[in-house]
Formats: sequence, C-alpha cells, structure tokens
Amino acid sequence: MTDPKTFLRALFDSAVDAALPEKSVPRFLPEKPKGRTIVIGTGKASAAMAKVFEEQWQGPLEGLIVTRYGHAVPTKHIRIVEAAHPVPDAAGEKGAAEMLQLVQGLTKDDLVVALMSGGGSALLSLAAEGVSAEDKRAVNRALLKSGAPIQEMNCVRKHLSRIKGGRLAAAAFPARVETLVISDVPGDDVSAVASGPTVPDPTTYAEARNILAKYNVTVPDSVRRHLEAAPDETPKPGDPRLAHARTQLIASPQTSLEAAAAVARKHGITPLILGDALEGEARDVGFVMAGIARQVQRFGQPVQRPCVLISGGETTVTVRGSGVGGRNVEFLLALAIKLAGAEGIHALAADTDGVDGAVDVAGAMITPDTLARARAHGIDPWESLANNDAHTFFKALGNQVVTGPTLTNVNDFRAVLVV
Amino acid sequence: MTDPKTFLRALFDSAVDAALPEKSVPRFLPEKPKGRTIVIGTGKASAAMAKVFEEQWQGPLEGLIVTRYGHAVPTKHIRIVEAAHPVPDAAGEKGAAEMLQLVQGLTKDDLVVALMSGGGSALLSLAAEGVSAEDKRAVNRALLKSGAPIQEMNCVRKHLSRIKGGRLAAAAFPARVETLVISDVPGDDVSAVASGPTVPDPTTYAEARNILAKYNVTVPDSVRRHLEAAPDETPKPGDPRLAHARTQLIASPQTSLEAAAAVARKHGITPLILGDALEGEARDVGFVMAGIARQVQRFGQPVQRPCVLISGGETTVTVRGSGVGGRNVEFLLALAIKLAGAEGIHALAADTDGVDGAVDVAGAMITPDTLARARAHGIDPWESLANNDAHTFFKALGNQVVTGPTLTNVNDFRAVLVV
Repeated sequence: MTDPKTFLRALFDSAVDAALPEKSVPRFLPEKPKGRTIVIGTGKASAAMAKVFEEQWQGPLEGLIVTRYGHAVPTKHIRIVEAAHPVPDAAGEKGAAEMLQLVQGLTKDDLVVALMSGGGSALLSLAAEGVSAEDKRAVNRALLKSGAPIQEMNCVRKHLSRIKGGRLAAAAFPARVETLVISDVPGDDVSAVASGPTVPDPTTYAEARNILAKYNVTVPDSVRRHLEAAPDETPKPGDPRLAHARTQLIASPQTSLEAAAAVARKHGITPLILGDALEGEARDVGFVMAGIARQVQRFGQPVQRPCVLISGGETTVTVRGSGVGGRNVEFLLALAIKLAGAEGIHALAADTDGVDGAVDVAGAMITPDTLARARAHGIDPWESLANNDAHTFFKALGNQVVTGPTLTNVNDFRAVLVV
Repeated sequence: MTDPKTFLRALFDSAVDAALPEKSVPRFLPEKPKGRTIVIGTGKASAAMAKVFEEQWQGPLEGLIVTRYGHAVPTKHIRIVEAAHPVPDAAGEKGAAEMLQLVQGLTKDDLVVALMSGGGSALLSLAAEGVSAEDKRAVNRALLKSGAPIQEMNCVRKHLSRIKGGRLAAAAFPARVETLVISDVPGDDVSAVASGPTVPDPTTYAEARNILAKYNVTVPDSVRRHLEAAPDETPKPGDPRLAHARTQLIASPQTSLEAAAAVARKHGITPLILGDALEGEARDVGFVMAGIARQVQRFGQPVQRPCVLISGGETTVTVRGSGVGGRNVEFLLALAIKLAGAEGIHALAADTDGVDGAVDVAGAMITPDTLARARAHGIDPWESLANNDAHTFFKALGNQVVTGPTLTNVNDFRAVLVV
C-alpha cells in the first residue's frame, strides 16, 4: 500500500470530494417544468450548489441564495446574497423576505428548486408577524447560550419565523418544490437542515414553549405573546400544500464516510464505519478510539487488521486552557497520548469544511512517533492537551492538514489506520 | 430470543463466571513437584483462588495469602491474612514478611504456586531496607493523589519494596514458581497485577526517580536516598533466578468478554467486542456508544443487527455533583440520554466485582423507555447526570443490577444490545 499519511489524506479528500456540490448536484437535477424555474436556497454550501446547478441546467432560470459572508461564488442567473452566521443580521432578513416574495404567485407548472445546506437556519431569518427582528435575535442568542441541542433550538426558531418549518414551500404552493440537501446534521434529519423551510415540520408551538421553559430562556414579551397565541402552525407531514414538495439528501456525513470506505477497500484495507454522528468530549472520544485500535492490534477485534476505523459527527471541546485548538486536533492529540507510541497506528482527523476551530486549518495527522517527536521539540503532550493547544502542537510537528475553505460541510472526519 | 433484560443479564453473569476462581483455577493446575508445594498470593480474588486450589490439589501443601478485609474465605491448609486496601497497613506488611520467609531455603524440587489478582500491590507491602513502612505509605498516598497512571505508580512501588517486581520469585530460587493471574489490568500486563512479585520487572530505579519528579511527588529523605543509592535492582527479563518462573493469565477482562460473546452467539446475536480496555470519562464513553448503536440501527454498520456491542476496561468519573453514582451507571445514564428512547436498544453496564462506586450495587440496565419512566417518576435524567446521581436514578426505576461481592474482578462489563 501507499504510505499511511498519503493513504489517510486520500480518504479525507474523498470524503470532502463526495460532499462537493460539483459532484453531488449534477446527479440530482430535477425534471424540467413546463413553467418557470426558481432556484432558492440557504446555507454555507448553497452558493456553490447554485453555481453548479445553473451550469448544468438546460433552460431559463432565476433565483436567490442567502449564504454566509465569504461563501459567495460568481453566478450568472442566480443572485447571491451574503449574511451573518450564527447570529442573523439585516442582510439575511432582507434576503428571506425577498425569497418569500420570489415564490409568490406560482402555478402548478412552475418548479422551485431549494438548495439547502448547513448554517441556513441562522442565515435565513424572518421574524413572525408581531415579533421584531431584534426580539427574535435576542431569543436566538439566548438559545445559543442555553445548552439546548440544535433540534430544540430549531423548533423554537421555526415557530418564530415566517419562512422556516415548511412555510416557504407552503408559500410556493401549488408549484412543485424539489429540495436538494447537503447535510451536516447528525442523523441526516432533513427537516433540521436550515430549519427546513421547504420540509414539513412535526413540531408544535406547545413544544417550542416547553423548550424555552426547560432551559429557563427568558424571552421578550412579543415572543411570549406570539408563542401563546400560536396563530399559524407550521405545515405538518401530510399537509396538502406540501404534497408536491420532495426532499433529497444529496450529500451527508454518511455518504462521505462511505466514499472514504470505498477508497480504503481499493487499497486492500478493511474499512469499519463506527458512526456518522459520534459525539462526546473530543479527548474522551480519542481515548475510546485508542482503546478500539489497541483491541484490533491485540485481538483482531472488532475487525482484523489492516483496517481503518472511520467515524464522523461533531465532538465537543470544553475549553479550560488558553491555547489554539479545535475539536479534531484535540481528539487526535488525546488519541496519540493514549496510544503512547503504539507501532502501526496512524490517524487523521479534520473538519470537512476545512476549518477546525477558529483557524484556517482543517485538522492534523498522527504517526507512531508523534509523542517522541513532540518531546524532541520540547513540547509536553499532556500540557498541550490541558491547555487546549493542539493546533500549536501539530503545527510544531508539521502535521497539520490544510485545505482552505472547502465550500461544503458534512461535519468532522476521523480515520484511524491500524496495520 | 429471550427478553432483552434476561439476555443481557446472562451475558454479564457469563462474564463474571469466566473470571471466578472455581472456573479458571482448575484448568491451570501445575504439575505436581517431587518436593514441597507452597501456595502464596495476594489480591482481592486470591483467597477464593486458594480455596479452589486446595480443593483441587492432590498432595500436601501449605501456604499464605494476603487478601483485602472482607475477602477471606475458609480454607484448610492455606492461611488467609486480611489487610488494608488501597493504603497498606501493618497486617499487610507482616503478611508480606512471612510470605518472603515461607519461600526461603527451597530446592529445585519444590514448587511455589503464586495466586495473584488485582489489588495485591497495596495489600502486599514490605518496605525496602532503610525505608520505614510509614515513609513508604507516605509515598503511596502521594502517588494516589498525583494522577500518575497505575503502571507508573507500580514502578515506584517496586523499587521501594523487598517483595515486588520479581523479588519474591528471586527469593524462592531455585524452586519452580508457577504464577496464576486473574487480571483486572487493561492490556493484561501480568507484571502490573499486584506489582508482579513473581514476574520479571523491566523498569528501573532511574525510571522510578523520573516518575516522582514528573508528578512533583515530594518524598521522605529515606526514600530519596534509597532511590538514589539503587542498591539491588529488580530481576529483569532473562534473570537466571527467574528461569523457572512461569506466569499464566487464567482470567482477564478479555476472557470474560469472550465468554459473554459466546453466550450471545448461542442466542443468535452477533457479538462485537470493541475493546477490553476502553477508557475516558464515563458519560462521554456513553455518548460514543450511543453513536455506534444508532449507526447499527440506521446503516447496519459496523455490524448488522441483531448484535451486541461488548466492551470492558475502566472509565473515569469526574465528580462535580453530590449524588450517589459509579462509573458504570453514569455511563448508562449518559447512554440512555443520548439514545433518547430509541426503540430496540437495551444495555447493561456493571462492575464484575459487584461494586460500582461506593455502594453494593454492580450496575444497572437501560431499556427504550428508561427516560420516559424516569420522567413519570418526576426525575430529570440530565439533572441526575449533572449531579452524578445515577445509582439513585436506577434505584428509583428498579433497574439496578445487584450481585453482591463476586470475589473476583476483571474490571467493568458493558453490553449494548441492538435488535
């Protein structure tokens, strides 16, 4: 086989590649309509999706995409608007209002193509009637601090919005609505991506109220009144206004893990996908992965070597130090420490969006001599970990993985090679 | 198949069973010697091992075992002494001196059988010449607080001891020494169990000094002088005095996981052993295991259901609350929370010694309705977890696993059934 570092990098590249709009969008082009084609969408990858879409599409189209600042790409027919993430701003609000306007007055011969990706929930923000944008933002900020999981935050957001939770698709009725989703959400719940403006929403006003109570989130009076009045429930599964709305997952954490697994097989290495949504404190996930890798070496369990343990999903880092770190590199450093130089084990962990934490580094790699080389550089691995300083650690060792922004995002990618 | 709870309990019972002296000792009886047979040993399971040994042994024998308070069992020929754990006391010191005396003056026709198990390192304590028992205890207390891993603590202990690190076997020279080990140590390093009184010791005085420096452990002058003088190195691998010493692992975390896997296979459930030494914060290990279980359900990876994910080893709990908890139940509670009531997933986690944390409860089980039943009891699962109160949680639900002390210990046992 090729050397371990080249092999692991090939796996990561294939995972990112599978999630790129230029690979995934062309395979899911909808049927041409008799009438107009309107392209809408939001999320970090959506401008890149729109560019590919209009390059591939035969026939006239128009549209509007709201993406994150710095994520626009040049397009010919579809207008791209940049807005703020994770706290919405006026640009996103204006974009949302225009998008809603754009799908008004369509007929059943028209087609709306929605290009959705992660981050859209904050980007596409339009407060419900009677709630000010500022009050809605206050709730959003409070939710981000509350510790509520993303699903619960989205339930509240959908019930304070004029566009989320299927409302955009309902507005486009009776047009056909084809939604293509690049998902970074564990579990691939398509209604969670961008809070599902074109996807039926099973959650209710009552649930939104309960979530705010559960996390002790204090809300402005206008918000409280709106949630209690519950004026206009989101379209539920089976709602006739969404009968012609269809959603397809065109790229996801799992499809990227599968792409990497296919590359491993080609190299004669058994891939073992452990999960596309592994969660937990990054260092502890590293400790667990070290235990599994050692089990492979010692007992050929859960699989014989040569093998590669593949996983995705989003770990967390409880920041206690003042170093420069990220989820993936902290995972890797803990993995290296627990492996204690075990021969034959190499690993890569990186964020598929190219940014692990605050710096423009996707992640890093470890080799059996990682700890020894660190000590030769005068770096104490335990201290680096305690100081959440893993980016500095891997920079010193020359083992960073740098891609630049990939313009897609299917969450983290981790591969542990045991030969 | 039988119901999930009965199935999981059968797996746990088989894991404990495989580690019981009555199952493991008879399969490893050594050849009878021409001369005398002396049985020695130390650890929490060693009195039970001695009882089985003398019941099975054909021929005269004598001996001495040092076990933990409360772990003695009635024997006919082998004397059982109880001593303190984890901080040694005078009883353990007296027992160690007598044991060393017992193996003096033997010939090559004699046989020494050493019955070793976890906990012996603290139980069998005999300070090196020039170091007082009190000074040695002071070092031991400081090490327990230092955060040094058990292997490093044992390196220091071996170099402050007249009996550890192969010294007992050297004292028995030229007699044959057969050591039977029930191991609770991740990785089954037999020299680590009870600090290996009959096993060659690759570590050195210099390493012991470095470890104390690394963890900033201040030691009494007598200890410092002894470690610097380095009077009498422990027998290294290849030492001729240990040429007739042999060590056999008769039960270990891995043998118990294999026993449980065999039971699963008999029930038509695919066992997947992930590791016999998984470490990490208990709740985060629970989160990771939830992710793997969900992957099985959604994608049939890393294995098709019905399957059971089996693992051992020792997680850690960072205590922040004031509740009643333990490693295994905290793991389970976090697992239940992350599974969020997923259908078809049941789990058991328990300590094979029958004691998870401070209470006489081995562990617990979860079912798909665990969270719902807790809420019906007015218990908030997140709050219980935050308060490290998992024993209280599972007691209220009637889902505790109680065995009483098992008199053996091969660490934790976790099984997650996905049907």
